[in-house]
Amino acid sequence: MSSKKKIPFSEFHKNKVFDFGKCSLNEKQIIAYAKQWDPLPFHLSKEGGQKSVFGGLIASGPQIFHEIHKNHWLPLFGHTVICGIGVNNWIFIKPIYVDNLIHSRITILDIKLSKAKKTGKISWLYEFLDKNGEPFQSLEMTILHSMA
Amino acid sequence: MSSKKKIPFSEFHKNKVFDFGKCSLNEKQIIAYAKQWDPLPFHLSKEGGQKSVFGGLIASGPQIFHEIHKNHWLPLFGHTVICGIGVNNWIFIKPIYVDNLIHSRITILDIKLSKAKKTGKISWLYEFLDKNGEPFQSLEMTILHSMA
Repeated sequence: MSSKKKIPFSEFHKNKVFDFGKCSLNEKQIIAYAKQWDPLPFHLSKEGGQKSVFGGLIASGPQIFHEIHKNHWLPLFGHTVICGIGVNNWIFIKPIYVDNLIHSRITILDIKLSKAKKTGKISWLYEFLDKNGEPFQSLEMTILHSMA
Repeated sequence: MSSKKKIPFSEFHKNKVFDFGKCSLNEKQIIAYAKQWDPLPFHLSKEGGQKSVFGGLIASGPQIFHEIHKNHWLPLFGHTVICGIGVNNWIFIKPIYVDNLIHSRITILDIKLSKAKKTGKISWLYEFLDKNGEPFQSLEMTILHSMA
């Protein structure tokens, strides 16, 4: 599933996987994000990256989550959000370089329903994978949703 | 401690607390962040907030971390960063409204030294507290630092 059509709560099921397709972050995007939120040398310029252990410009850790959350997750699920509850197990496994192909996949790990309150507490697994299916990073985000 | 002077690795100790003082997020800052990364109605306008369960405009969950990380943490500790390892136990306990007073406090929870590699893996606890010392939210961020 990669449409941007809102998905109703009734279609949220444990273990359901949403494939957000492939994307990449270009040099301009990586540097713009870094200037705003994470101005470390290896996020700010090619030269800074080359002098670091990474040997090249890499994206700030949280950037790919924010990009995918805004451009893919929110258009589908945002209309049901009551509030955020937490983020867990966000692991930065390997760096994301300029123009790396990034495959984003989201899975519903768990749903706790409160029928009285008409809410569902959902744990969403975000996975960002490379072209071989190996993870760049993953995280679990817990959100309180409205069933209405 | 609230100075912006770089702090050398030799002064990093388990249980050390760094007080980053008090700040707040104004309406303009909250809306600008939301437009960019989290365009939900209760982050985008007063009216949207009033119609939500919050009864007013509130900041996107991650915003306060990004603000404090960039403006306080990085100036002190950024020169020692090799890479990010992960984020855990980020809990959104209560919402941050426009102009709420936010007290930011960072504690070194743990340090794992590798003397051979001259690195230290540090777990940093971020706490954002209200005027009564009650938490808005907290999170643990793990970073690999250079001892050099």
